[in-house]
Amino acid sequence: MAFLKVVPLERALEIVNSFTLPLGTEEVKLSEALGRIVAEDIYSPIDIPPFDRATVDGYAVRAEDTFMASEANPIKLKVVGEIHAGEEPKLELKKGETVYISTGAMLPKNADAVIQFEDVERVGDEIIIYKPAYPGLGVMKKGVDISKGRLLVRKGERLGFKQTALLSAVGVERVRVFRKPKVAIISTGNEIVLPGSELKPGQIYDINGRALSDAVNELGGEGIFLGIARDDRESLKELIEEGVRVADIVVISGGASGGMRDLTASVIEELGEVKVHGIAIQPGKPTIIGEINGKPVFGLPGYPTSCLTNFTLLVVPLLLRALGREGKVRKVKARLKHKIFSVKGRRQFLPVKLEGGVAVPILKGSGAVTSFIDADGFIEIPETVESVDEGEEVEVTLFEGW
Amino acid sequence: MAFLKVVPLERALEIVNSFTLPLGTEEVKLSEALGRIVAEDIYSPIDIPPFDRATVDGYAVRAEDTFMASEANPIKLKVVGEIHAGEEPKLELKKGETVYISTGAMLPKNADAVIQFEDVERVGDEIIIYKPAYPGLGVMKKGVDISKGRLLVRKGERLGFKQTALLSAVGVERVRVFRKPKVAIISTGNEIVLPGSELKPGQIYDINGRALSDAVNELGGEGIFLGIARDDRESLKELIEEGVRVADIVVISGGASGGMRDLTASVIEELGEVKVHGIAIQPGKPTIIGEINGKPVFGLPGYPTSCLTNFTLLVVPLLLRALGREGKVRKVKARLKHKIFSVKGRRQFLPVKLEGGVAVPILKGSGAVTSFIDADGFIEIPETVESVDEGEEVEVTLFEGW
Repeated sequence: MAFLKVVPLERALEIVNSFTLPLGTEEVKLSEALGRIVAEDIYSPIDIPPFDRATVDGYAVRAEDTFMASEANPIKLKVVGEIHAGEEPKLELKKGETVYISTGAMLPKNADAVIQFEDVERVGDEIIIYKPAYPGLGVMKKGVDISKGRLLVRKGERLGFKQTALLSAVGVERVRVFRKPKVAIISTGNEIVLPGSELKPGQIYDINGRALSDAVNELGGEGIFLGIARDDRESLKELIEEGVRVADIVVISGGASGGMRDLTASVIEELGEVKVHGIAIQPGKPTIIGEINGKPVFGLPGYPTSCLTNFTLLVVPLLLRALGREGKVRKVKARLKHKIFSVKGRRQFLPVKLEGGVAVPILKGSGAVTSFIDADGFIEIPETVESVDEGEEVEVTLFEGW
Repeated sequence: MAFLKVVPLERALEIVNSFTLPLGTEEVKLSEALGRIVAEDIYSPIDIPPFDRATVDGYAVRAEDTFMASEANPIKLKVVGEIHAGEEPKLELKKGETVYISTGAMLPKNADAVIQFEDVERVGDEIIIYKPAYPGLGVMKKGVDISKGRLLVRKGERLGFKQTALLSAVGVERVRVFRKPKVAIISTGNEIVLPGSELKPGQIYDINGRALSDAVNELGGEGIFLGIARDDRESLKELIEEGVRVADIVVISGGASGGMRDLTASVIEELGEVKVHGIAIQPGKPTIIGEINGKPVFGLPGYPTSCLTNFTLLVVPLLLRALGREGKVRKVKARLKHKIFSVKGRRQFLPVKLEGGVAVPILKGSGAVTSFIDADGFIEIPETVESVDEGEEVEVTLFEGW
């Protein structure tokens, strides 16, 4: 057990990176694949178009039959049939023959051009042509749009509506996607109750449970909020065991009281192993990283902004990796609104609000719900830095748009 | 009936804007509210914190009892109890008394400060204080974070994880949201088959059905793909009637053949009213806007890029309005990659790909699936313009991120 041996963030991240989530993949119907992450490169199984296709309404011809056509030397072709979109042409063009063809229809054998009907004169069962048609006129050749075997969607890519439409166009009906990582969320603390319960004196409503489960959902995982563990061993143990059973990752957010932290660590140690108990960052000193049955278990601080900061630092990269994405959270550059002070030797993560390229430090304290709501992300102030000046460029790690 | 009377886009948009979708609202559980659009302003029903709350582990005191404390004049207070987070304090502090209090716990009556335990000396059932505590020290006052009645979420706002967490924190369990607009999607054409079917000669797989239903889903609506209508009156009529029955809006994308357009208009006229048949834009000339049982029915071009362009111009604003959002699609400025030509008198919408602030025109033709995939949006070239120069600033209406 690693009780109270505070480790640097880098060591904590090494441990996070050492976790492997054997999530596996699953096959879903294309109609349910929107938003999912593709688990393998997908290549086109067919040519698009799958046949030489008329792009205009008109007459399919052998171009060579028309090469000599001019106003002075009109050429007549005999109309031997009609082909409509969706039909298989049953005939093949012989010298001097043509067929009426509609847009989208398949060219008959030997035809290599389509002259739009406005450009010919039809007389009985003949058409009269006054200028030559070149091979390929009015035709989209088989495979010219998408050739069979072309890479359509890469492993790790998210399926937006364009991607699902593309897969439909090549006839893909089922797609192999990464299984959504399931994250069990547990809130702890005797003072916490769920919305819908009456608030008795001394109690507050849960915020972290909803925040973390919905953050997981927004990320593309499946957040499973298991409820609230009371500050007693059995209640906490029961929920952690359930979390390990139903999910790939378990995230516990601490109650406000100090003793809860040790209880969480002790229960994790009983059920598995505590790998980190304390990280040399602020907020995050009480953060726990453990493993039970090969599954990562995180104990995060209880204050909402601290909780979300540590979630973003430690859990989000793991989730992104599990989703087949790069595993990097989003960062933007900004200018600091006003000078801030830190303490030498303390590695601090300070929540900020972004206002058009300017990072406004949020100094209300991480216990405030409004800090949590206002914060668009956080900046890091290293141990060696005692202050950051107004207007200095800072890098903001974002809480949203992961 | 308005057969083949081509109208300007502005007139078509007037008609679109005249549609009212009586979508109404529905109440959902907070745990299922992520991503939904709020249908009414939500105010906090409670103060946060709901009571004067200790922000540190320590001793709750009457600040005035400590005002005279100094190193030279330590003051002793009697510890008369303990209060833990979640408990209702049963006692009230009398002069000279204190209680041990844990972070997050409710202050007892008469207490107005909490001195953290590191700053006092405990001897038996007494603590010794060496410096004064000011009122409010170590305390978050009732309502200081969020006061009862404060506006939390505005009508029309999307509920992200921060908003659901905020509503949880104030105990909101159910949220009134806009009902998702249901959009029935119908593809037409004898040549179109669904993925999963075998592709016979002359046939192609559907693209618009999947594209439009998933685009509606991404927008926050509910896309219901009803399948493919054959080029015959009964097949089309049946699906349009089903669409009007199950959805708020019906969108039909035309097959490649010309006759389909008139068939669609004729069926809409039979079941309701054709309000627009033809818009003076390219692509979009064959676009139909109708109304059946008070519900908007759109007939869009069959070529995928044309279909998506007209969907973005006509249907997306209606959907955004139904979702309680502003009804404006997203636009960005870009520089044109190379000179393009248009035809005077033709109002053209040209698909472009965005490459870092540069708009690259897609000239492959709107029949190509790859045009559809590459296009990030489109630019408008007015009737009066015959060419747009390389490097000129253009406004790109986006196909994504609505």
